[in-house]
Amino acid sequence: MTARITSLRTYDIRFPTSQELDGSDAMNPDPDYSAAYVIIGTDHPDRHEGHGFAFTIGRGNDIQTTAISALEPYVVGRPLQATLDDLGGVWREMVHDSQLRWLGPEKGVMHMAISAVVNALWDLRAKRAGKPVWKLLADLTPEELVDLVDFRYLSDALTPGEALDILRRAEPGKVEREAYLLDHGYPGYTTTPGWLGYDDAKLARLCKEAVADGFTQIKLKVGADVADDVRRLAIAREAVGPTVRIAVDANQRWDVGQAIAWVRELARFDPWWVEEPTSPDDVLGHATIARAISPVRVATGEHVQNRVVFKQLLQSGAISYLQLDAARVAGVNENVAILLLAAKFGVPVCPHAGGVGLCELVQHLSMFDYMAVSGSMENRVIEFVDHLHEHFVHPVVIRNGNYVAPTSPGFSATLRRRTLVDYAYPDGPVWTEVPAA
Amino acid sequence: MTARITSLRTYDIRFPTSQELDGSDAMNPDPDYSAAYVIIGTDHPDRHEGHGFAFTIGRGNDIQTTAISALEPYVVGRPLQATLDDLGGVWREMVHDSQLRWLGPEKGVMHMAISAVVNALWDLRAKRAGKPVWKLLADLTPEELVDLVDFRYLSDALTPGEALDILRRAEPGKVEREAYLLDHGYPGYTTTPGWLGYDDAKLARLCKEAVADGFTQIKLKVGADVADDVRRLAIAREAVGPTVRIAVDANQRWDVGQAIAWVRELARFDPWWVEEPTSPDDVLGHATIARAISPVRVATGEHVQNRVVFKQLLQSGAISYLQLDAARVAGVNENVAILLLAAKFGVPVCPHAGGVGLCELVQHLSMFDYMAVSGSMENRVIEFVDHLHEHFVHPVVIRNGNYVAPTSPGFSATLRRRTLVDYAYPDGPVWTEVPAA
Repeated sequence: MTARITSLRTYDIRFPTSQELDGSDAMNPDPDYSAAYVIIGTDHPDRHEGHGFAFTIGRGNDIQTTAISALEPYVVGRPLQATLDDLGGVWREMVHDSQLRWLGPEKGVMHMAISAVVNALWDLRAKRAGKPVWKLLADLTPEELVDLVDFRYLSDALTPGEALDILRRAEPGKVEREAYLLDHGYPGYTTTPGWLGYDDAKLARLCKEAVADGFTQIKLKVGADVADDVRRLAIAREAVGPTVRIAVDANQRWDVGQAIAWVRELARFDPWWVEEPTSPDDVLGHATIARAISPVRVATGEHVQNRVVFKQLLQSGAISYLQLDAARVAGVNENVAILLLAAKFGVPVCPHAGGVGLCELVQHLSMFDYMAVSGSMENRVIEFVDHLHEHFVHPVVIRNGNYVAPTSPGFSATLRRRTLVDYAYPDGPVWTEVPAA
Repeated sequence: MTARITSLRTYDIRFPTSQELDGSDAMNPDPDYSAAYVIIGTDHPDRHEGHGFAFTIGRGNDIQTTAISALEPYVVGRPLQATLDDLGGVWREMVHDSQLRWLGPEKGVMHMAISAVVNALWDLRAKRAGKPVWKLLADLTPEELVDLVDFRYLSDALTPGEALDILRRAEPGKVEREAYLLDHGYPGYTTTPGWLGYDDAKLARLCKEAVADGFTQIKLKVGADVADDVRRLAIAREAVGPTVRIAVDANQRWDVGQAIAWVRELARFDPWWVEEPTSPDDVLGHATIARAISPVRVATGEHVQNRVVFKQLLQSGAISYLQLDAARVAGVNENVAILLLAAKFGVPVCPHAGGVGLCELVQHLSMFDYMAVSGSMENRVIEFVDHLHEHFVHPVVIRNGNYVAPTSPGFSATLRRRTLVDYAYPDGPVWTEVPAA
């Protein structure tokens, strides 16, 4: 009997984070970090399941969950091994379904739903292979990796042949890099000190703790009030000293002209990059800002909808750092494309993380990049936010400011069973015991 | 007692159009034209309801309907008159809800859901005012119109002051233009001949009928096979003669280099514009194509997600024609912004239509543009596709190739009660009697 995928179950999981102002920024004053969560089951006797999710910040997580459920017919009933062996084909089938495509195309709720399912399939494949996803990917041949990628709309910037060349150039030294990675981990930076809702004393204390913990870069939220930002940056710079990098993050708060003026006010504190200065859709705006605020660098990506927009950000010289997100574009496959694009243009990838489980996911992508694509950690850091890791079976481990390479099989995406019960929305005990907002 | 909005009801309505290959193109071989439909009710004794919808092409229409239902708390319970008097404020509340925004931002399923609700509110306002939407909008003052627009992310291209100037310049001559519009209507063009699924004889016959019906422009779908396209364009050019404009539409089928090569093959048939040559997200790609294929012109817009992408298409000189869609961006308010942007850059707006009810909606936007924004019909045509109009209470009327200005109050969006029953998916009689695909 051929083993098959037999179920796709979804869960609307929400954490009442707005009560503590964790995660507060200029655009998102009161997020309730949430996961539209999916578990893919099989009838194979190994009983492995694939776990994945889309991250949202509260309202609308039900819509996101509905969209994931709608993908059930694309997954359930398929032969297990053949499906996992052809995740490039499965990806194309879902993304290019001619009717579903109309709901994006390749953006928003429908694309994030595909992300959750694709990442769950990668989790399942890695668990069955007994490897973490970063290692599973790094062990694929250049040809197998290229086959995962959809080059539609990319060929003016990256062809399959160029992608193969990039991957082949990274083959030598893999063994040494793996040893280095397992010994040292991968550099992180922390956003924990910088949420807008924190008072000055808490900011200063958390900045000092970050340095003591070994981080060489921190990040502050900005963009609500320029005088506040000047004051908070002065406190942070004083607290961390001149050599620790301070990134600032405006979370799309500004128009183009306003971004340029605002960053010039902050420039004396030597911010390392300014993140999401304006709409994530505004490629030309980002390029204009980048030219105007140099040597301060522009970073963006957490809300960039797909590889086509990343392509343009790179083509136009708009970004010095590319911040991919594990669960907004359509999962591992599209992120392989994005890592290849970044390598082609020589732009370091510093993933967006935080939220629910994004640190857990993106560590695999950066470590794969180091192993098999860019082959470098130079100027590369993975965002770290110390929220909600305790809900995961295999939470990230940070040591001296570095992400320790995960060795458990899978994508580190599995939430604890207890969490799926307690934080279920709206009927879980955490929500039935909290007064309605 | 203050009258209130008391209900928001949704309907998953699908038409089995794939059975006839109506609407077949290179990217959408078998669409089932669908509407995620919404009716907003009140407790006012006038019993008017607001009707709106998002258009999809089949699978996923349930997700779209769910997303519209999620907006109920933003509408139901509000005071009726105050809400309709402040549709700029209502728009901002829904689009900038900090949690829902994460699902886009401002794109895809969530944005289209807002479109349906916003357009339904405009339908309700116009019915209560006893005017068609085009007239209701044209009768607003420049200040009232500017207040409908969210200028966030636009100010590097269009400021509120510039928008006011554009609207004030269009004030003189309104009375004359209204008389002209009511007498002559607004020029249309027809896509009816050009679907990919039609054979050569049907193509030739429909081309001749289009000219006989008074159309001065037709459109052909292209992009599946270049030899087929050359043959079909030759047939069409022969059938319509040298002066009727033939637009071609690739429905996003090509990469940038491929688009340029393909259009050069077709150039000898003098295509008026090439529509959606590549990904709707690829601003830089469209600009590259536009430079390379001139004097053939580039048109796009039906899948452009929001005003920020339209802004860039205009800033980069990528498009000669802007094809707004009534129900993909967030409804009337965002389309007022887009009309103003187009006027600022001097680019004619030729709306996308067809599908379910899109002709019914966009006619109001073009007529408003003529009355109060661009003040011109020059080089402007509204797409016409002769599908599914019979399901609307006030279907569009085409006379000698022109859209007759609608005079019934509202947005012409009201589907017949019988259609809501018969085409309900999956339980309506049309679907229970059709064999599953």
